[in-house]
Order: sequence, then C-alpha cells, then structure tokens
Amino acid sequence: MDYFFYPKSVAIFGSFREGSIAREILRNIVEGGFEGEIIPVNPKGGIIEVAGRKFEVKRRLTSKVDVSIIVIPAKLVPGLIRELKGLTKGAVVISAGFSEVGNVELERELINAAREAGIRVIGPNCAGIFGVYGKFFGSFEVRVRKGGLALISQSGAFGGAALAMGNEEGVGFSAFVSYGNAADLNESDFLMYFADDPNTKVIALYIEGVKDGRRFFDALRYASSRKPVIILKAGRSTSGARAAASHTGSLAGSYEIYRAVFRQAGAIEVEEMEELFDAAKVFEMYESSGKRVAVITNSGGPGVLATDKLEKLGLEIAKLREDTVARLKEFLPPQCSVRNPIDLIADADYERYRRTIEIVCEDDNVDALLVICVPPIFISSGEIARAVIDAKCKKPIVVNFMAGALVREGVALLEEHGIKNFPTPERAAKAIYWLSLRKGDRVIS
Amino acid sequence: MDYFFYPKSVAIFGSFREGSIAREILRNIVEGGFEGEIIPVNPKGGIIEVAGRKFEVKRRLTSKVDVSIIVIPAKLVPGLIRELKGLTKGAVVISAGFSEVGNVELERELINAAREAGIRVIGPNCAGIFGVYGKFFGSFEVRVRKGGLALISQSGAFGGAALAMGNEEGVGFSAFVSYGNAADLNESDFLMYFADDPNTKVIALYIEGVKDGRRFFDALRYASSRKPVIILKAGRSTSGARAAASHTGSLAGSYEIYRAVFRQAGAIEVEEMEELFDAAKVFEMYESSGKRVAVITNSGGPGVLATDKLEKLGLEIAKLREDTVARLKEFLPPQCSVRNPIDLIADADYERYRRTIEIVCEDDNVDALLVICVPPIFISSGEIARAVIDAKCKKPIVVNFMAGALVREGVALLEEHGIKNFPTPERAAKAIYWLSLRKGDRVIS
Repeated sequence: MDYFFYPKSVAIFGSFREGSIAREILRNIVEGGFEGEIIPVNPKGGIIEVAGRKFEVKRRLTSKVDVSIIVIPAKLVPGLIRELKGLTKGAVVISAGFSEVGNVELERELINAAREAGIRVIGPNCAGIFGVYGKFFGSFEVRVRKGGLALISQSGAFGGAALAMGNEEGVGFSAFVSYGNAADLNESDFLMYFADDPNTKVIALYIEGVKDGRRFFDALRYASSRKPVIILKAGRSTSGARAAASHTGSLAGSYEIYRAVFRQAGAIEVEEMEELFDAAKVFEMYESSGKRVAVITNSGGPGVLATDKLEKLGLEIAKLREDTVARLKEFLPPQCSVRNPIDLIADADYERYRRTIEIVCEDDNVDALLVICVPPIFISSGEIARAVIDAKCKKPIVVNFMAGALVREGVALLEEHGIKNFPTPERAAKAIYWLSLRKGDRVIS
Repeated sequence: MDYFFYPKSVAIFGSFREGSIAREILRNIVEGGFEGEIIPVNPKGGIIEVAGRKFEVKRRLTSKVDVSIIVIPAKLVPGLIRELKGLTKGAVVISAGFSEVGNVELERELINAAREAGIRVIGPNCAGIFGVYGKFFGSFEVRVRKGGLALISQSGAFGGAALAMGNEEGVGFSAFVSYGNAADLNESDFLMYFADDPNTKVIALYIEGVKDGRRFFDALRYASSRKPVIILKAGRSTSGARAAASHTGSLAGSYEIYRAVFRQAGAIEVEEMEELFDAAKVFEMYESSGKRVAVITNSGGPGVLATDKLEKLGLEIAKLREDTVARLKEFLPPQCSVRNPIDLIADADYERYRRTIEIVCEDDNVDALLVICVPPIFISSGEIARAVIDAKCKKPIVVNFMAGALVREGVALLEEHGIKNFPTPERAAKAIYWLSLRKGDRVIS
C-alpha cells in the first residue's frame, strides 16, 4: 500500500471551484510540499491557481498515477473506476451517498468495478489519507506535524478532530487514514500495513465496529507484536452501541467480546479521546516500562498527586536503594526529601535536577522517572527543561511541566528535543501506566 | 474577613530590590488595578518605581491599613506583628522558616503576638491571597480572570500552578488563598467565609490534611449547603499520604475517613487537577442538574463517545417524548438521527442547532443538554456558537466544541457569553455528572 502513503503521483477528480472539497484537498497537497506529479481532473478542463501554483485541469486522466482521489457524485464513481483501469493503483473515494445512506447496491457496483480494474479502494464516504513522510496530505483535514503516530479512524469527523487536537497536544503523525464505509480496504489492512511501516512507531485505531472479527484479531495481534496499538472503541455502552449501529451500519456487537479481543491480541485500550493522545505521545517516545517509578518534583503537592495516581493505577513507588539515598543526601539541601517522591523544593535549579535524575536513573530499583516542574521562582523553566534534556539516562522519563504560559519556554525546549510534556501530574502518571502495559505483554507473532 | 479580600488599604513589608518577592507582590497589586492605598514599608526607606508608579518606601507603618503583607525574615515576624497592633486588621505572612522546617516555637510566638495584637493571620509560609472583585492581587502568583471560583489551597505551589492552568482552561476566579502552615486561619475559616461571599459561586479546596476534623466537617457542611464545594485531597494512597505528611507536617489520616466526611458534608470530591477545573467551570455556570441528558452533535463518533461516558458515569440518555421526535422530524433532513444522541450531521448550520436545542429543551424528559460541534465544513464554528447562545433554554447546556484552532472562533464567542467549553466529549459528559451530584444532595444548614 506504499502507493497510498508514499505516492509518486496523484490525480484528483472533482469540482475545483472556490470552496469545493476537491480544491481544498488539492490545496492541502500543494501546501504540504508534495514532490510528485499532481493532476487535477474535471471534464470541463480549464486553468486553476491553487496555493500560488497554476494547474491545467485535465479533461480526463491519460497518464498513470499511484493514487486517485475521487470527489465526484456517488452515482458516477463506479464508471470512473472502470475508466481508471491500468491508470491508477489506488483510489480514495471521498464521495458519500453509498451504503451509509442505504445505497448498498451502488457500493457493490463500485467494489465490483474496482476488483475488475485491479484497483484498491479506501472509502467511500471517507475524509481521505495522509502519508506524512511522503509529504502527501490527501485530505481536506488540517495538516499535522511529522512524528510516530499512524491514526486509523472509522469516523472521518472523529479523525479530523483528532488530527487538530493532536496538533495542540503535541502529537506527531506518520500517517492518517479515514476509511469510511470500508467497502474494500478496512481496519485490518491498515493495521497490517502500519505494523511494518518503518516511520510508524505507534498505531491508534478509532472504531465503532468491525465486520470480520477473525481477521481483525489476527491483524491486531500481528500489529501489537510489532509496536503499540492503541484502540478507542466507541459504542461501549448500551445507548452508545445503538447509536454507533445507526451511524455506521456496522454491528457494534458486545463490548465484552471486543475487550477480550483487544486484550488477547495485546492491544492497549483507552476509554477517552484525551487518553488516546496521551498514550500516543508516550509511545512516540518509549517502547515500554516496568512498574517501579521514581517521582522527582520541585513542589510537594503535585508530587503527592502523581504518587496517588501511580498507586491507584497499580504502579509502584520505587523504593530507592540505600546508596542512591546516600548519594542524593550528599549534595541536596537538607530541606529536600530524598524519599520517593523526591522533593527538590522550590529553588531547585538545573544542577539539582540533572544530578538527581542521573543518580536516580542509575538505581536498579527504578524502571521509569516522572519529573515534575511547577514554575520555578527565580530561574526560567527552560533551565529545568535543559536539565532533563542533558541528564544521562536511558530509562523512560515522563515530564509534567505545569501551568501553561508560565512554563512555555521549558515545554518548547523539551519539544525541540523530542520530549513531550504532559499537562498534569495525573496524566503524566497515566502515561507511564500505558508504557507499563507493554512490558512482558508482547505477543510473539 | 472582608478586610483580606476587599481591602481598602494595604501595607507590604519586605525588600523591594529588583526581583524580590515583596516587589513582585507590589507590582501585582499595582498592575491588578487596586484602588485603595498601597504602602511599601522597609526600614531603609527610599523611592521605588513599580509598574510605572512611584512609591515612597515608609521606614515604618504609621497609619492604619486593612491588610499587611509580610515578606521579611522569619525571626523578625513576631516583633513586626507586635508593632502592628492597632495598625492592621489582617496579616498575610509569606515568609517561610516556621513549623514547616521544625521552628515550631517561632510559629507559636508569632501566633501569640497576633492574638495579643488582635490581628488575624494567613500563613506563614504561604503564597498570598487574591480578592479578585476587590481588585486586590496580594500574591506573586499570576493574576487571573474575574469569575465565580474561590480557590483555597494548602499548597502554595499547587495553588500557583492551578491559577495559571485555570487561566488556560477558562476558569474565572473570585478569590484565591494559599494558607500555608495555617497557624491561625485555616481551611475551615475560608470555607465559612466564601460560603457567604456573594461573588463566589463555587469553592475549590486543595488539601493534604486538616488538623481539626470536627470543625472542618461543620464548615464543609455549611459551605456545601450554600454552594458547590469541590475538594481535591492529596495523599489518598499509602505512599502519597506518607509524602504529604512529611511535606506539610499535617496528619494525612485515613483517606476512608476523609471520603466519608466529604460525602456526608455534601462536598464534591474530584481525584485529578483537570477534574477540579472542569467541575469549577461547570459550577460557575450552573447550580445542579438531573440525570437525564440529551446529546446533540454534528458528528456521529463524538456523540457516541459522549453517550458511552454518560452511561458509564450513571447518567441517563434521555428518552425523548414522542412529540419532541415528531417536531424534530418535521424540519430536520431525513439523514439526521432524531433518537438521542441526536445527529444533525456534517452540514448542520445555525438554524438546525438552535431549533433542535430549543425543541429538546422543552422536553420534560430532558434535564440537561450536551452540545457537540466538530469543525463545520462550510460555515464557521462561530455560527454554531451563536446558535447555542441564542437558543432559548433554561436548562444546563454543556458544550464540547472540538479541535482547538479549528473551533477557536466559536469557543471565543461562547466565552464572551459566559459559556465555557469542554475540550472533549468525555470531559463535557463528566461536567454534567458533577452537576448531577448536587441535585437533591443539598444539606440543609
């Protein structure tokens, strides 16, 4: 499926008038820096200018492309697919008006046409795809930062919202696919593909229901054996399942069965959108972690909140070795607490943080570090960020720099070095929890 | 205690050199627009300029003030308090170095001096106070927007971080008090005070432990009978309690006892910082709600996620009356779902949202509305915001406009009209849950 996510050429079929979806997609592709050939197609022809670049609109496609994006009226789609035989490898059908509104026959016709033409289809009724490393933004959704997350979404609107929120939450993306009605390619195909995609470190899947449970289980198990797979399943409650069924037409099925499948396959289930981002963020940074956590903070209260949450999640507050405690006592002011949580107190500076992180990191009773920073009083948050960046430590460090504008400098500096910030002590604690679910839970494929 | 939160005059004792805490507090008071008299005091005297205003530093206080803020070395504080007899009603002692570092005797001396002088004391070892409606920002912490929340924090650092985060989360504040060692006034006094403060709609309390449990219970019950009281108790876990004890010196006690006290007193306990903000936000808008919720959305997926969360929290997905369904069917396009969750689909505009909200609001099977908006495709999010604002409805409406930058216009417009946005469907659902805890749970005082 590389031709979808790393295409060398793309054709876009639709109306290119101002404000149209096809034009928005074209704009996104141009502005996203796509380096391959871009061919807009419409029977009316003409010249258009998009994002400062002029295009001749072809009346029909005559040369071969990797992928075609189709935004034409539903009833014309099967005919176009037949015409594209030999001209395109893949088709992304944005057009709606198929099985989701009861036009099951039209969707069958589309799929038959695609099978005959040897074309693989994403959609119909989808929001498109992004191949971020291929600089290919084949969707009208907001473009995203490059990173490790491949987001697979059954719902286009959910996907779009998640991309925009991911941008704000500091998530980086490798790819996005909204697969809509899944007439041809579905969640299982994408799981298999991204499992082997070298730019994807973590896969997140939003589903309401799947059609082929057996194949899904196999794909999920395979993908989870290669990298973390995060799942947000909508339709867990009775009312939610009923709503999902009416919304996607897919059988939501018993949530208990889904849960068992997720667990057995080694996937990581989250229950909220926010958790999806937090889990994705932490898995962009680290593969897994043990359960014994050391908390390092410059303020007692937030350290206690992190400790409460860690314990509630079944993690352990690491018992530091005697020699670790002794080494900390040697250079820390006497008011600091050297028991875990380690309180470096309000005037903690670069050196205090860096040395503490390094000493604690060497303790073999410690699997991961949770580093908290409330706005320091006499120095910038950037100094503390620098300490986290410079500290020599191979174990997972999850940071909670707290209080928005007051720590913006530190958070930005961390970001530049690939360290993602979690905005509260509890969310940082839960991030370590997600990591701990991967330890020893690997399924051998 | 009005002299603390609505003072007519303030004296500040400390060093006013560049970068000092006393100077930062003075700057905050001036920039915050305090309209009363401001008197900086330091034995060295001199002239200083702060925030564009010149002050003569008095060598000692000779006129009467409502409140004195004290940032001088700990050992000098009792003497100063004695000198202030008859000159100040209240003293906020920022200075640290008392019981929190083992100087119990010095703290006792401070309190004895205050009692003899008839001066009430906040602190020592605290971050100060804000009386937002008195335009009095008597702390070095970041200033906040005017609103309904009085935040009472045992931890100064937690309080400071919470103020800054509250600003980002859209919380509005009536007051803030960091009470530190609570040598004189403590959490119970502030609960009693803010219970009767007309500008305070909701009280939030961060505690690690309390000293006088009986008095605390009475104060909490009284305050909860007047308005919602949100509590975040740190030190719930074994390790957390131990850390809290070493941090504040207060006995954390058994969390089970605290929980029972909170519940019996009618307070609302939250378990995370983020929940504290969300609960505060919703109670700034509404007093309480029943359990039957209608979900209105322009995208199926997020509607399902909200439904799942509502059901998980024990709320009910309202069963709409037959005539409500009929009225909705009359004007909504046939693709819309008129079962709850009500899906207005992607092209929903101002009129579709407004009329739906009004019709659903009139249904007596519905107690509260959860209105979701993913970025609309052909109109601005401001239009949908306007529909929420214009809709005639007296029931609680909790909104989730989703996807950061893409709905910024709508969220800003809602804010202007006092409608606070919740960033995910799940957090909006939980906000209604907080409201539902107040229904019928009122304790009669």
